[in-house]
Amino acid sequence: MNNQTINITYEFTSTSHQEAETLAREIALEQTVELPAELIKSKFIETEIIGQVQSINHISLDRYTAEIAYNPEITGYQIPQFLNVLYGNISIKNNIRIINLTLPNKFLDRFKGANYGINGIREKTGVWGRPLLCTALKPMGASPTEFAKMAREFALGGGDIIKDDHGLIDHDFSSFKERISRCQEVLIETAQKTGKLTLYFPNILAPIEQMEEQIQFAVKLGITGVLMSPFLVGADIVRYIAGKYNIINMLHPALTGTHFNDLRHGIAPEILLGTIFRLIGGDISIFPNHGGRFNLSVDQCKAISTNLSAPLGHIKPVLPAPAGGMGIENIADMSRLYGQDVILLIGGSLHGYSADLTVNTRAFMDEIKKYFPENTKTIPININPISSCEVKDNNLDTILEYLQFKSDYTWIGRSITEYKDIDNPDFFNITRQELTGRFGENTAFDLRYFEIGSQGYSSLERHVHEHVIICIYGIGELIIGDITLKLKPFDIAYVPPMKIHQLKNNSSNPFGFLCIVDHKRDKPILDN
Amino acid sequence: MNNQTINITYEFTSTSHQEAETLAREIALEQTVELPAELIKSKFIETEIIGQVQSINHISLDRYTAEIAYNPEITGYQIPQFLNVLYGNISIKNNIRIINLTLPNKFLDRFKGANYGINGIREKTGVWGRPLLCTALKPMGASPTEFAKMAREFALGGGDIIKDDHGLIDHDFSSFKERISRCQEVLIETAQKTGKLTLYFPNILAPIEQMEEQIQFAVKLGITGVLMSPFLVGADIVRYIAGKYNIINMLHPALTGTHFNDLRHGIAPEILLGTIFRLIGGDISIFPNHGGRFNLSVDQCKAISTNLSAPLGHIKPVLPAPAGGMGIENIADMSRLYGQDVILLIGGSLHGYSADLTVNTRAFMDEIKKYFPENTKTIPININPISSCEVKDNNLDTILEYLQFKSDYTWIGRSITEYKDIDNPDFFNITRQELTGRFGENTAFDLRYFEIGSQGYSSLERHVHEHVIICIYGIGELIIGDITLKLKPFDIAYVPPMKIHQLKNNSSNPFGFLCIVDHKRDKPILDN
Repeated sequence: MNNQTINITYEFTSTSHQEAETLAREIALEQTVELPAELIKSKFIETEIIGQVQSINHISLDRYTAEIAYNPEITGYQIPQFLNVLYGNISIKNNIRIINLTLPNKFLDRFKGANYGINGIREKTGVWGRPLLCTALKPMGASPTEFAKMAREFALGGGDIIKDDHGLIDHDFSSFKERISRCQEVLIETAQKTGKLTLYFPNILAPIEQMEEQIQFAVKLGITGVLMSPFLVGADIVRYIAGKYNIINMLHPALTGTHFNDLRHGIAPEILLGTIFRLIGGDISIFPNHGGRFNLSVDQCKAISTNLSAPLGHIKPVLPAPAGGMGIENIADMSRLYGQDVILLIGGSLHGYSADLTVNTRAFMDEIKKYFPENTKTIPININPISSCEVKDNNLDTILEYLQFKSDYTWIGRSITEYKDIDNPDFFNITRQELTGRFGENTAFDLRYFEIGSQGYSSLERHVHEHVIICIYGIGELIIGDITLKLKPFDIAYVPPMKIHQLKNNSSNPFGFLCIVDHKRDKPILDN
Repeated sequence: MNNQTINITYEFTSTSHQEAETLAREIALEQTVELPAELIKSKFIETEIIGQVQSINHISLDRYTAEIAYNPEITGYQIPQFLNVLYGNISIKNNIRIINLTLPNKFLDRFKGANYGINGIREKTGVWGRPLLCTALKPMGASPTEFAKMAREFALGGGDIIKDDHGLIDHDFSSFKERISRCQEVLIETAQKTGKLTLYFPNILAPIEQMEEQIQFAVKLGITGVLMSPFLVGADIVRYIAGKYNIINMLHPALTGTHFNDLRHGIAPEILLGTIFRLIGGDISIFPNHGGRFNLSVDQCKAISTNLSAPLGHIKPVLPAPAGGMGIENIADMSRLYGQDVILLIGGSLHGYSADLTVNTRAFMDEIKKYFPENTKTIPININPISSCEVKDNNLDTILEYLQFKSDYTWIGRSITEYKDIDNPDFFNITRQELTGRFGENTAFDLRYFEIGSQGYSSLERHVHEHVIICIYGIGELIIGDITLKLKPFDIAYVPPMKIHQLKNNSSNPFGFLCIVDHKRDKPILDN
C-alpha cells in the first residue's frame, strides 16, 4: 500500500493495551476479509487488502482508539462499498465508534462533491455576508394552494430559501407536480415585484423509478435545488443524482440518528453529516441544532459545521443548516456559533410567531441582520425558466426505441457515415448507417445498414465473427469463399467464421442490405 | 381513518403516565406534520394525517409503550417515505425504540415481497426436510480462479448455496464478471457429474449505474439469486431490483447494527431484519446468530426467524440465515432453535475446518443430516442455461449460408413453427420461423421472422434481453411500456431490458417482422 490510504480512527472498549491491539486487528479483518488471520495465506491480501493498524491509544478508563489504514482500491471508489468498509459489519458489534476519517486525494478525486458549495449558493441567492434564512413548507396534508400561499408570504418577507418538509412526497391527497409548479410560479411572480428570487427546494423522496422524473420536472420549472434524505433513498442514489443534475443538493439527516444516540457506538455526526454528506454531493447539510428538540451537543454541532468547510481534496466547502425547534431567540446564539456561512432553518416557530408569515419572516430577517450586515446583488430572474438545459447529456439518450424508416433508405435519428474511417481504398462506393447496438444498448449484436452504389464493393476480408446479411433493396452479389450468391430483397445470407467474403453491386441501381454482427468482435483480416 | 392503519408500538422513557401521553403525542406529530399541535388548524390533517395514539402502557420502572395508528396513505405506499414515517426524525431523538409494527393488507398489497420464499427456494435447490448449508466465497483479494476452485470444492461436498462475501465487488484486482462466470461455470460442470446444482448468489453491491448491468449479466448466465445489502445500496433499490428481476434475494444486514446496540433505541431487529426485509423483497435474511462474533441475543434471533415466516398479508414466508462465527459445533443448537427451514451460513470455520473444503462440506452436511432426514428431488440441470427456454433447437435443419426468400415470406431451408411450444394461450394467430443462430452458428444473436395474422398478437411479456424488430411486411403495432409504435416496412424498433411489450396486428392483412435477440437470453416474465 502506498501512503494514499483511507485512515479510520475507531474508539472502542478494552481492558488492556494488549487486548486493544487484538481488537484493532479484528476490526481490520472484519471490515475486509471476514476471516481469521490464520486462514490468510496470501502476501498480497495481507499487505494490500487487510487494513493496517497504525497506532493504538488509551484515551479513558476503558476506552482505546486505533487508527487503521485501508487501501482505497478495496472500496472500488464506490459509495456502497465505501460505507461497507467504513462501518458495514462492525455496526453490528457493540461499543465501536468511528471518530475520525481521513480520505486521500486519490480517493476524493473520484467523487464530484458539491455542485455549488458555499460560493455557488451565494451566487444563486445574491446574498453575502449574513446567514441565509430558510423555512419549510408544512404540514403534510396541506394543499398545493396552501403551500403556494406560504411560499409567497415567506418570499414577500424576504426569506432566502424555502424547502419542502422532508415528509412531503407525491401524495394522493397532495400532488408533487402541482405543489412544486404552484410554489415556483408564485416565487417567480413575487420576485418580479421584489427583485429577489427566493429559492425553492422540493423534496425528492420517491421510489427509484420516479426520482429522476421528479427532478427533471423540477429542473424544467427553473428550480435550482432539491432536498434529499440519503438514509431514506440510499447514499449512492444521492451521489448519482448530484452527479447527473447540476442542482443544489440540500441533505436531510432522517434515519441517521441511531449513529448518535450512543456515544460509544456509531459513526460520529461530524463524519456522517459532515464528511460523508459532502462526499456524496451535498451542498447543504441539515442537522439538529443543540438546544432544540433533538439531542446533539454544541460541540457536535460545531464539529459538523467545521467538517462541512474543512479542506477535503478538490471538494467544495458547503453550508451547515442547523435546525429542529429553533426560534427567533436562538438566532443570536446560532450566528455566534456558526458565523455568517450558515443556513438558519426555522420551521414551526417562524410559522407560529404570529398569524402573518410575511411579518414573521421580516422579524426573523431583521434579527439576523442585527448581527451581520448583508451585501446583495440582484440576480436576473429567469422568467421563462431554463428548459432542460441544465440536465446534462447522457449517452443513454441516444438509445432510440423507434427508428422510423424514410423512403430514401435512411432512418430518423440515425445518420449515414463512411463505410470505414480508414484510408485504405480496398472498398468503393459504399455507405454505412449504424442502427442499433452502439448507442448504449446491451444487445450482444449490432444492426447496421449498408448501401453499395453502382459498381461499388466492400472490402474483401475474413474474420472470426459471423455476418447475417438481409438484402432489403436492389440486387447484389455476395462472394463467400468460392461461391457467389445473388441477393434480392429478403434473401438472407450467413457468412461463417473466417470465410473470405465481399459484397458487390454490378447493377446500375443501389444495393442495400442489413447486416447483423456480434457486438464484441474481432478485427477483419484484409485479403486484397 | 378507517381501520386499515399502520400500527407502530414505541417504547420510550418517561417519568409518569401523563408525561408518556404527551411524549406519545409528540412522536405522532414529529413523524407526520413536524409542527406543534396548536399550529394545526385543519380537521383533515388532525384526523387523517397525524398519527392517532391508541394506547399507553407502563412496562418497567422508567419505560412506557405507546401504540400509534397511522393512515397508510401518508407513506404514499413507498419505501423511502415508509421508513421516514417509521423512524426518520425520531431516530435523532434518544431512547425511543420501535418494538412492534403491524401492516394492514391495504398497505401490504402494494408490495410484491419475496419472489420465491421458502417453497420456491426448496424447489430451486431440490432439497426438503433439512436446513440448507450455505457458505461464502472469501476473502476479498482472491482471484476468480481461486473463487471458482472454492465453489467447485463446496459443490463436490454437497453444499446447497454459495454466496459472495458481501465485500466482493467489481474490484480492479478481481473482476465481477470473471468471478461470476467462472464460478457459475464450475458449478454447472460439477452438477453434470453429481446431479445436484449448488446455487450461486453473487454480491450486487455497486453504484446504481452498474447494478442492473451486473444483475443482467448474472441472469444471462442462468444465475437464480443474488446477495444485496439494503442499508448499503438503499432499501428501495432492493425493492426495485427484487420487483424487476425474478431472482432469489438474499439480504445482508451490513450497516444496520446501530439499531441494535442500544436496547432503548433503534428499530428492533425482528422488525428491521424480519418484517422490513420481507417487505422490500427479501427471500432470505442474513442476521448475526447469538453466541458468535456479534451481539444479538437468542431471543432476538428467534424473533427475527419468527417474523420471517409469520403471516404478512400476501407476502411469502422466507428463510432465516443466521451467521457470523458459526462452526460445526453450533449446528445442533441452530437446528433446534430454527428447525428445518433455515439456511446455515457458515464461512470461516467451514473453510478452516480442515485443508480440504470438500471434506469439510461433507462433514458439516453429515452433521446437519444427523438432526434432519432430507428429501431430495433431482432438478434438471440447464446446461445451456437459459437460451433454450423459448424454443427447442431444430436438429433437422443445418447451418445454411444462403436462405433464399420465397414470395410467400418463407425461406428455403427453414420452416414455419409454432410461436411457442407451450399451451398458455396468451398469444393468438402468430407464427415463427427461426432463420439463423440456432442451427450451430456461433453468433451471439438469433434472427427470427414472425408473422401475425389479422387480429393476432404476441405474448405481453418482459425480459432482460432486448429485441430489435424490423418490420418487413404489412402494418402492425408494437406496444412498449406506455407507448404504441406503428410499424410499417423497414421501420425498426428497439425494446429495452425489462420493458413490457407486445406486438399486435389490428389490420386485415398479415404483419411480418424480423426480430433479432441475444442468443443467450433469460426467460420472459408474462404480464397477462
